[in-house]
Amino acid sequence: MDSVITLDYGSGGKKTSALIEEMILPLLGNQALDELTDGAILPGAEKLVFSTDSFVVSPCFFPGGDVGKLSVCGTVNDVCVSGGEPRYLSLGLILEEGFPTGDLERILQSIGNTARQAGVQIVTGDTKVVERGRGDGIYINTSGIGFLRRPGLSPRSIRPGDSVLLSGTAGEHGAAVMLARNANLVQGELVSDCAPLTGLSRALYTLGDALRVMRDPTRGGVATTLCEFVENTPLTVELQEEAIPVSRAVLSACDILGLDPLYCACEGRLLAVVAPEAEREALSLMRSVPEGEGAAVIGRITDARPGRVVIRTAVGGSRIAAKLTGAQLPRIC
Amino acid sequence: MDSVITLDYGSGGKKTSALIEEMILPLLGNQALDELTDGAILPGAEKLVFSTDSFVVSPCFFPGGDVGKLSVCGTVNDVCVSGGEPRYLSLGLILEEGFPTGDLERILQSIGNTARQAGVQIVTGDTKVVERGRGDGIYINTSGIGFLRRPGLSPRSIRPGDSVLLSGTAGEHGAAVMLARNANLVQGELVSDCAPLTGLSRALYTLGDALRVMRDPTRGGVATTLCEFVENTPLTVELQEEAIPVSRAVLSACDILGLDPLYCACEGRLLAVVAPEAEREALSLMRSVPEGEGAAVIGRITDARPGRVVIRTAVGGSRIAAKLTGAQLPRIC
Repeated sequence: MDSVITLDYGSGGKKTSALIEEMILPLLGNQALDELTDGAILPGAEKLVFSTDSFVVSPCFFPGGDVGKLSVCGTVNDVCVSGGEPRYLSLGLILEEGFPTGDLERILQSIGNTARQAGVQIVTGDTKVVERGRGDGIYINTSGIGFLRRPGLSPRSIRPGDSVLLSGTAGEHGAAVMLARNANLVQGELVSDCAPLTGLSRALYTLGDALRVMRDPTRGGVATTLCEFVENTPLTVELQEEAIPVSRAVLSACDILGLDPLYCACEGRLLAVVAPEAEREALSLMRSVPEGEGAAVIGRITDARPGRVVIRTAVGGSRIAAKLTGAQLPRIC
Repeated sequence: MDSVITLDYGSGGKKTSALIEEMILPLLGNQALDELTDGAILPGAEKLVFSTDSFVVSPCFFPGGDVGKLSVCGTVNDVCVSGGEPRYLSLGLILEEGFPTGDLERILQSIGNTARQAGVQIVTGDTKVVERGRGDGIYINTSGIGFLRRPGLSPRSIRPGDSVLLSGTAGEHGAAVMLARNANLVQGELVSDCAPLTGLSRALYTLGDALRVMRDPTRGGVATTLCEFVENTPLTVELQEEAIPVSRAVLSACDILGLDPLYCACEGRLLAVVAPEAEREALSLMRSVPEGEGAAVIGRITDARPGRVVIRTAVGGSRIAAKLTGAQLPRIC
C-alpha cells in the first residue's frame, strides 16, 4: 500500500485488489465477505428490516469516535429502532485522492471493532476514489439488514397518557463535532455519545405492545424527532425542561456555539414512547444496560396542542419546539 | 423546492422533509418507502443476496444514461450475477450544495423508471448535502437485496472445456462516458449499454449446474473480469479475438482515446461460463431476450497457461491479458 490513496485504488484493477486484500479483509473479513463476490449470500428470515445511511461527518475524526464508528452505529441503530435485530452491513467507501492510507486503516479498525460490539458482520462492500477536490477525505455509506423481532413500532401507536423516555444526555454528538470543527475553542471533556443501541433496544422489546415507538434522535436532535412523532396528529408531546438530561459540558459548548442542545444530534441515545403503566419498567430496563444508565422520563403525551411539541419550563412557562428549519449543523453525521 | 440544492436540504429538518415529500416520494414511492421510517420492513426469504455500490460517474449525464439509471443497474446486476432475484434497493444520495434541483429530479425519474424495468422497489433512503467544492454534483450509493434463486455460481465451478459467452458488444459504457467527458471529441452514435440484467440472468438460471459463473464486466472490463475468474487456479481463459463483439463506434472511440475495448466497462453485458454441452442452449437463451441479441461465444477454458487469460489473434498470434493495473478510466461508474 502507498502512504496516500491514489486514483488507481479505485480502478477495479490491481491496486483495488491490494486495498481489499491487504487492508479491508484483514480488518473486516468473515465467511461472506472473504468470498469477494459481487453480492454476499446470507441466511435470511421471514421479515427483514433494511436501512441505509451515508456519513459525511466533518472532521472525520472527533472526540469519542470517527466516521467509521459512526457509520456502523448510525445504520445499526436505525435497524434497532425499526424493531430489527441487526445482522449484516454493507460498506461503500468514497475516498478522495490523497487521503492518508493510515487514516483509512484507523477508520476500518474502528468499523471492525464497532461491528463486533454491535453483533453485525460487514458482508459486502465497494470502494470508489474521486479526484482531489471532488470529495472531503472520506464518505461512507452503510446499509443494514436486520431480522424483524418487534413488529408494529410506529408513531401511529402513540396514545394520550403515554410516557416519553430518553436513554441519556442530549446533544453530545452534535456539540462534540461542532467543537472539534472549531480548533480554536477549548474542547474540554466533551465526547460524542456515538454507540450501538443493540442492547438497549433488545431490552425494550420485552415490553411488548406497551412499547409504542423508538427512535435515535440524530440530525435535528431530540426536538425534531419528537415533532415527527406528532406532526399531523391530534397528539401533543409535553416535555418537562428540567427533566431532560443535558450535561454541563454540552450546555457550555452550546452556549459558546449558539446552539440549542435539544436540536443537537445524538448518535447513541434512544427516545422511546411507552404506555403509562410500563413507564417504570421501561426506565429500569433502560438503566439495566450500560448505554442507558442516564435514562430519564422527559415528558408525556397529551392532546393539549395537537401536532405540537411543548416545553414546560421550571418556572411554569412554556414554549413550542418546531422542527429544525435550517442547516443548524451541516455534516454532523 | 428551490432551484438549487442548499445545505438546508441536508439538515434533517423542514427542507429535508420537503425534498422527500415533494420530489422523492412522488417519483419513487411505494408501501415500504412511504412509511418514511428509519428502516423498511420487508417480506424476506430463506437465503438472501446482498450487494452495494457507490456511483461517482463523471459526467453524471452521459449518452445512454445517467448516474441514476447506472446506480439501479449496477446493484441490480450484481445481485443477478450472484444468483439472486433482485427485490429491494436502498438509495443514499450525497448532493453537493448548488446542485440544480431540476437535474436531481431527472435523475430520480431515471431511478424510478429503471427500478420498474428491473422489477425492484426503492424501500429506504438517505440524503446528505456537502458544501460546494466538497463533492461533485451528486454521488449515489445503492444497496440491493435479492432472494437466492441459483446457488453455487462461482469461478470455482469452472472446468476445462467450458465455454465463455458474452451477451453483447464490449466496452460501450466506458467508451461513451470517456467521450462525453471530452466535449471537444465527436460523440457520434456511441451510447452506454447501461441496462438491468434481470431478464438475461433469469433465462440462464434454467441451465442448472451447467451454468458455472456469471459476472457483469464493469470496472476493468471483460479482460479484468476474466482474469479474476482464473487467477490462482490451474485454468486458462483462451479468447478468440475475432469472436469478441466490439462495435465500430467503440473501436474508433478507443482508437482516439488510446484505450483497449476489453478493459472498458460494460454496464449492461453479462459474461457467462457454461459447460461445453450447454453452449448452444446458453447462446440461444441469451439471444432470446432483447439485451442478449448480440451474444457470442468468445472463448474456452483450457489448462494451457495456468492462471492466465490468453487472446488468440486472427493471424495465429497470441497475447496475455493482465488485470488492469492503473486507473485507466477513473470515475466510470
